[in-house]
Amino acid sequence: MSLLKETLKQIEPQDTDSRAAAHARLEQLTMPYWALGRLMDLAEDLAGMTRSMHPPVARKAVVVMAGDHGVAASGVSQYPQEVTVQMVYNFVNGGAGCNALARQVGAKVVVVDAGVAGDLSALVKDGKIISKRIAPGTANMHTGPAMSREEAIRSVEAGIEVALSLADSIDVFATGEMGIANTTPSSAIVAVLTGSEVEKITGRGTGIDDAGLQNKIAVIKEALRVNKPDPTDALDVLAKVGGFEIGAIAGLILGVAALKKPVIVDGFITTAGALIAQALSPTSVQYMIAAHRSVEPGHRAAQEKLGKEPLLDLNLRLGEGTGAVLAMNLVEASARVLTDVATFAEASVSTAH
Amino acid sequence: MSLLKETLKQIEPQDTDSRAAAHARLEQLTMPYWALGRLMDLAEDLAGMTRSMHPPVARKAVVVMAGDHGVAASGVSQYPQEVTVQMVYNFVNGGAGCNALARQVGAKVVVVDAGVAGDLSALVKDGKIISKRIAPGTANMHTGPAMSREEAIRSVEAGIEVALSLADSIDVFATGEMGIANTTPSSAIVAVLTGSEVEKITGRGTGIDDAGLQNKIAVIKEALRVNKPDPTDALDVLAKVGGFEIGAIAGLILGVAALKKPVIVDGFITTAGALIAQALSPTSVQYMIAAHRSVEPGHRAAQEKLGKEPLLDLNLRLGEGTGAVLAMNLVEASARVLTDVATFAEASVSTAH
Repeated sequence: MSLLKETLKQIEPQDTDSRAAAHARLEQLTMPYWALGRLMDLAEDLAGMTRSMHPPVARKAVVVMAGDHGVAASGVSQYPQEVTVQMVYNFVNGGAGCNALARQVGAKVVVVDAGVAGDLSALVKDGKIISKRIAPGTANMHTGPAMSREEAIRSVEAGIEVALSLADSIDVFATGEMGIANTTPSSAIVAVLTGSEVEKITGRGTGIDDAGLQNKIAVIKEALRVNKPDPTDALDVLAKVGGFEIGAIAGLILGVAALKKPVIVDGFITTAGALIAQALSPTSVQYMIAAHRSVEPGHRAAQEKLGKEPLLDLNLRLGEGTGAVLAMNLVEASARVLTDVATFAEASVSTAH
Repeated sequence: MSLLKETLKQIEPQDTDSRAAAHARLEQLTMPYWALGRLMDLAEDLAGMTRSMHPPVARKAVVVMAGDHGVAASGVSQYPQEVTVQMVYNFVNGGAGCNALARQVGAKVVVVDAGVAGDLSALVKDGKIISKRIAPGTANMHTGPAMSREEAIRSVEAGIEVALSLADSIDVFATGEMGIANTTPSSAIVAVLTGSEVEKITGRGTGIDDAGLQNKIAVIKEALRVNKPDPTDALDVLAKVGGFEIGAIAGLILGVAALKKPVIVDGFITTAGALIAQALSPTSVQYMIAAHRSVEPGHRAAQEKLGKEPLLDLNLRLGEGTGAVLAMNLVEASARVLTDVATFAEASVSTAH
């Protein structure tokens, strides 16, 4: 059986007994009923995911999947494609936004080449990044499929492999990404899988102007017209209008779900990856935590399709997993609500009349 | 000159040069323009408050001011007054919500008796809490003033003294409180200082039912009718319909502002304290950070009066400083954005076209 099929088979729902046990304890904590709101909802989820009244949350990693996109040639980004490679070096040197925020919460930054157009072999040789390179960037979806179906499967399996390789060392995962032009395939995926109009779910990405936005919308529409992705077949959508790092993110999420651990989904691009994961395994959604509401207009539709309300809303639009890393503090705090707060009986505090 | 007057004189605006220097660096970071949104706004604020491009944020404390309220006798809470003392013991033993969340972010929990009705002398003797006790609870504002004007000044000065005593050991402060019935004086203060109708800004506190809510509204209206607090005189408002811990919170905020350090304002009750501080020193608002939007309906009006948009919205209604402690992670993350992220030039990354 293929790694993908095997992984999908291993994804089980949250454990209802663990959820019930957590709920019962949370109701007895020395505070008014459910007074820590969403932290308590999340604590119950963590118990259900991990089958534990002490959900492990100490060891954290943000996995930054990097990939390039043929559609960059169609003028959809204001940054040149070389920035993908430059930012990978920035991650490795610890100078990017995700590094700064990961240090704050004590998370490891794991960088994966899922298909970058430039040469990263020196970093692979030094063990600074993981190579899961499918090809040096996708083909241009503007005129044909971004990749073959086989490449789509390999990109998802690459993400699963990364999750499995971290199984023994990481408790909480965050999804991150880097890839110039990757809001364009993300908008295409979100349009297909949520049934939304392209205009409504396409935004300015790194900051294109009005003319740039009109071009981006036209490119996405043309890509959908040319490729006709099948909305009932997530691998077809990924192959025709996706990206290697987006497939790898979907795989990472599926792998973490199979491990029965929490995975925090970051911004618009990794949420597009989460939609692919959801389509392949609806149960995998039970292991996802939506970190934040991005500035990208399509993020809301994508999160609604997942059935997730984000934890934060801070006008972020960086990606790299930055919002997911910020949310790691809330995940850790939620676990502490379950494990560290005394009950009325334990603390000899009077209950309500 | 009194400590209060001296402190008010020492509160200066944020430094515009430091803000400008921070802004200039933030614009050059290796990311699209202002892509970390509110974290960057906050980073600029931190620079302006602390006059530093490396705002100190490592040493954190949540100051939990505890006090009792004569108005508890008017049936405004579903918990008995003894819970205030019991919860102080819970804080000291590390079992409360604020302890759990403070451990997550590495913050110290400083508990202050500002006027609790029970006996806490054993904890004071052991150095477990700070005594700034004005009286064993306020008088019942339902039938007369909660305290004298002199007591109101002393409660504010108690908070200033706590801030000054922590000046050399703490970089970032969070406001916390405990006091059965204290949403009632808080609603009264918010009604007077924002000019809102009592019905619109009074909520269920720890969780009273519909009849309890109607009684609470009637009690607050009667307290305002009997006492006629002067909306242009914050000390008169505090004396007539306030509380000792609320005055101490106002003082803590003023003291921290005088120290040119950030103070994170928690939920409804400490925001009522912040309104007192604002009325005494409008400039002090420049050192306040609004942590979260509470479930209490009056919190929005109070935050609008401060001109603050909260960072979090997680259905919290616990108090104790829990939301402010959660927000400490965001404050620390914001400082790291300013200090830890490389610029385009530093990282040799190409800029936009």
